[in-house]
Amino acid sequence: MPVEKYRPFLETNPVSLTDRQWPDRRLEKAPRWLSTDLRDGNQALIEPMDPARKRAMFDLLVSMGYKEIEIGFPAASKTDWDFVRSLADEDAVPDDVTVSVLTQARTDLIQRTIDALEGFPRATVHMYNATAPVFRNVVFGNDREATKNLAIRGTQDVIDYMEKTLGDDMIVGYQYSPEIFVDTELDFALEVCEAVMDVWQPAADREIILNLPSTVERCTPNIYADQIEWMSRNLSRREFIVLSAHNHNDRGTGVATTELAMLAGADRIEGCLFGQGERTGNVDLVTVGLNLYTQGIDPQIDFSNIDEVRSVVEYCTRMEVPARMPYVGDLVYTSFSGSHQDAIKKGFEARRRKIAETGDVTWDLPYLPIDPADLGRSYEAVVRVNSQSGKGGVAYLLSTTKNLDLPRRLQIELSQIVKDHTDESGGEVTADELWHIFADEYLPASEVAGLEPWGHYTLRSMSLSSGEGERSELTVTIAVGGVDRVISSSGNGPIDAFVAAIEQLGHRVHILDYAEHALSEGGDATAAAYIEADIDDKILWGVGIDPSTINASFKAIISALNRTRR
Amino acid sequence: MPVEKYRPFLETNPVSLTDRQWPDRRLEKAPRWLSTDLRDGNQALIEPMDPARKRAMFDLLVSMGYKEIEIGFPAASKTDWDFVRSLADEDAVPDDVTVSVLTQARTDLIQRTIDALEGFPRATVHMYNATAPVFRNVVFGNDREATKNLAIRGTQDVIDYMEKTLGDDMIVGYQYSPEIFVDTELDFALEVCEAVMDVWQPAADREIILNLPSTVERCTPNIYADQIEWMSRNLSRREFIVLSAHNHNDRGTGVATTELAMLAGADRIEGCLFGQGERTGNVDLVTVGLNLYTQGIDPQIDFSNIDEVRSVVEYCTRMEVPARMPYVGDLVYTSFSGSHQDAIKKGFEARRRKIAETGDVTWDLPYLPIDPADLGRSYEAVVRVNSQSGKGGVAYLLSTTKNLDLPRRLQIELSQIVKDHTDESGGEVTADELWHIFADEYLPASEVAGLEPWGHYTLRSMSLSSGEGERSELTVTIAVGGVDRVISSSGNGPIDAFVAAIEQLGHRVHILDYAEHALSEGGDATAAAYIEADIDDKILWGVGIDPSTINASFKAIISALNRTRR
Repeated sequence: MPVEKYRPFLETNPVSLTDRQWPDRRLEKAPRWLSTDLRDGNQALIEPMDPARKRAMFDLLVSMGYKEIEIGFPAASKTDWDFVRSLADEDAVPDDVTVSVLTQARTDLIQRTIDALEGFPRATVHMYNATAPVFRNVVFGNDREATKNLAIRGTQDVIDYMEKTLGDDMIVGYQYSPEIFVDTELDFALEVCEAVMDVWQPAADREIILNLPSTVERCTPNIYADQIEWMSRNLSRREFIVLSAHNHNDRGTGVATTELAMLAGADRIEGCLFGQGERTGNVDLVTVGLNLYTQGIDPQIDFSNIDEVRSVVEYCTRMEVPARMPYVGDLVYTSFSGSHQDAIKKGFEARRRKIAETGDVTWDLPYLPIDPADLGRSYEAVVRVNSQSGKGGVAYLLSTTKNLDLPRRLQIELSQIVKDHTDESGGEVTADELWHIFADEYLPASEVAGLEPWGHYTLRSMSLSSGEGERSELTVTIAVGGVDRVISSSGNGPIDAFVAAIEQLGHRVHILDYAEHALSEGGDATAAAYIEADIDDKILWGVGIDPSTINASFKAIISALNRTRR
Repeated sequence: MPVEKYRPFLETNPVSLTDRQWPDRRLEKAPRWLSTDLRDGNQALIEPMDPARKRAMFDLLVSMGYKEIEIGFPAASKTDWDFVRSLADEDAVPDDVTVSVLTQARTDLIQRTIDALEGFPRATVHMYNATAPVFRNVVFGNDREATKNLAIRGTQDVIDYMEKTLGDDMIVGYQYSPEIFVDTELDFALEVCEAVMDVWQPAADREIILNLPSTVERCTPNIYADQIEWMSRNLSRREFIVLSAHNHNDRGTGVATTELAMLAGADRIEGCLFGQGERTGNVDLVTVGLNLYTQGIDPQIDFSNIDEVRSVVEYCTRMEVPARMPYVGDLVYTSFSGSHQDAIKKGFEARRRKIAETGDVTWDLPYLPIDPADLGRSYEAVVRVNSQSGKGGVAYLLSTTKNLDLPRRLQIELSQIVKDHTDESGGEVTADELWHIFADEYLPASEVAGLEPWGHYTLRSMSLSSGEGERSELTVTIAVGGVDRVISSSGNGPIDAFVAAIEQLGHRVHILDYAEHALSEGGDATAAAYIEADIDDKILWGVGIDPSTINASFKAIISALNRTRR
């Protein structure tokens, strides 16, 4: 590999910091957070969000407690413009939330950006221009002076056009980003920021946000921290500056870079939920927030139902959260090793004793840096069905013998159920035994030979209608303890309507995940549906198999519902 | 959220380091690498590797250049024992590779572990015991003295049993891990390591590997670096010690922790390809290696065909590499933003000029921290088909109108093709136009109305046979430029055999990815197959649709093959 074409970062970007302070500092409070899910995150999705998804993301961010939300680049695209306007027109922004809009440093774009803000009670205009040498020399053909003047003129344009068009009662803040800060000579980044401040004139009641992006991650996190500390100590008017970090993850160290930047003086962090964003993504706000939480620092963000957050983000972004993503991935509260499981079991017992005896709730459990219950998750132990042979594994067997392609979290749930059976019977299970265990657990109304049908609820029949653009109207007959009940309901779609019907039976149902596929075996079109639901505060899976895809999904919900009562 | 139950890590685990050196150091060479894919990685898979997968992983690691490979826990499971023995019996370990086996500090396990090593020319015995307070107090009920004595006695057992059973010509090294080092009081970790060294007696020709795991990541990376520097400076006999770091990723900072540990004195790094391992995984060896590479430091590992590495790892682990994984994820060389694309285009042009004029090959491209060509990848620009409306997106349209569920990298490839069409015609595409573009590009022999069939090769017929446990024997008729040719070949399965047939036509074919699904539409069992292949050094996708799943996959390969010639 032609390694000789690369140079150490510090060779081109030295940092002169002889008495750095940050390694002796500790994190003590949450930073100000800015979510750029609707801007930097959205622009890097294979399928960018449609208006409904954007709104769902915005509402999620607000409900979690984010107070600064970048909502788009309204001068650059009509869809961004329309979304920004829809939030203003529908009065969707709570009093304690500030929206932010991005613009390049061009007069026409600045004006159109500010035009988009009409009617918001408060907002931040975020202007950037690229300051790094390769951008000055190769992309724009500007020297230092021209680059600095662009920032100065842009800032003046922002001030002038705000004064001209926006009402006095509107609070409009200003954020400036010397883009590709990480590659910019530090003295020049400082010079540009000072020039921008000379125009904006920050003061006690007039803060300026200076945002210093590692647009592309280029060095170990300690070097970026040195850069931030250097800036923080050399900037004038520091008390009026909100120093902000915007970190990407090209070297897989975005979270660390952000954390060390906070030690070094960053007051504010920009990022995305689960790390969406160009290329490797922006820093993951969830991980940074929960890392603070595990150190006893309140992140000021509500992560107490992390699966719901994940489910909305996956809907909005159409991107899956990876299985090993900290705090939220399918596998992160799972122990496969017997010795880990044993240690965790003893840890939970000791914790119960300690709380009972001393009232001390301090968390100190082997292998679990956080209590999964705090996030609405549970600890899952997974024991091999058949040692490590692989081919005997639960998912593999059900896939090869029954064409069932179980979602990963369902595989984990099922492993535990199979383990309970094998603990009783000892040793391994055959494909046939596995099918019986699976069918008995998830398919209560099935007609698998040798199984006793069980379950309080059974789906008898249903009829569904919906006109174009209308809600789905559902009438469903469900046997409740053997007695048929006919229920009518409606919803956005059949599942939504069916959930509404179940709620009429006195249950609270919230769908967390849903997958469905055809069973190719036999050439018919039988479908298998898998639904993960929170029913009456129990989170578990249901499975339905039926020639009709709709019936399969209804049966899956019934399956989960029956399992909560077993 | 009950944040009050957590304590800052430094409150329980202070590090006293008043004159830390590591923030001023630079990374200058590759560490020694140990891959634990076959041990820590494998134990945390939903489906652990079967023997064939383990061997494929071992061979991959060797071919990439890893010289230390942990191959299992032979005393703990029969499958691990069998695999270790199979490598010895088949003489599978090259002369310059050292295998390593893990054991707990118990006499019987140590003996069985060493028994497993018979016949290897060289190996490392890796013994561990847990030294952290919560393990001493809650899990094992041992005090400091008992915990230290366990390590002393275990080390003596290793020495005694090695001398008794292994030949003099075998080189056996020793690795000791004070497990959960990160949570262990530093003075006690030091005390145990010193006691172990007193027994092992390291010397110039008798190194000891001391491995200091962040078994669960618990603090910002700088704190772990402080711990490593403290150990490195306080350990006696430092020149005979190989100081090793073993980092997990619970806080999403495993890569950074590893890098700062190298600055602080770690000589050796343990991890897994693409970060498999318990919970959030072990540190990703690929990211750490390529991070060094981008700084001009030769990692001593061959990453020049990263997609092939990925494809073998995905086969072995049955886990998907996430889309935003540094250096290898589907999206990391992709720019969605027009301004990014423009900058990269100018960067490539400037680079070509610079090389032509000055011969200077130094890499300095906007938004690309590494040349994707170094890893066998290419830079991909993706332009919205239909602004940001989402619903108009390529993948969405093909999924809703044709039930085609395209793999992500194929979506990206197709986006570019659609863009070339829309650049000509201007503006958006309808679902119908999109289907025509798609079918014309990927389904050359299709009978879509209005399309001219094209393609040098056409699949005419095939017959396939295989007895139980035997290779698949294939006879296939392929029209080559209109002339039928009958080719016989064999392989492990139909695709393997078909590739062998194509190679008889003078092409080099290597399958990188494969996916197939039923088209539920219409209730028939028609299958769509997608194949990514490296054909004559061009990497691209092919698609096949056919009632037979085998024919669909063959057609997909033909599709890719024809596309290389278009």
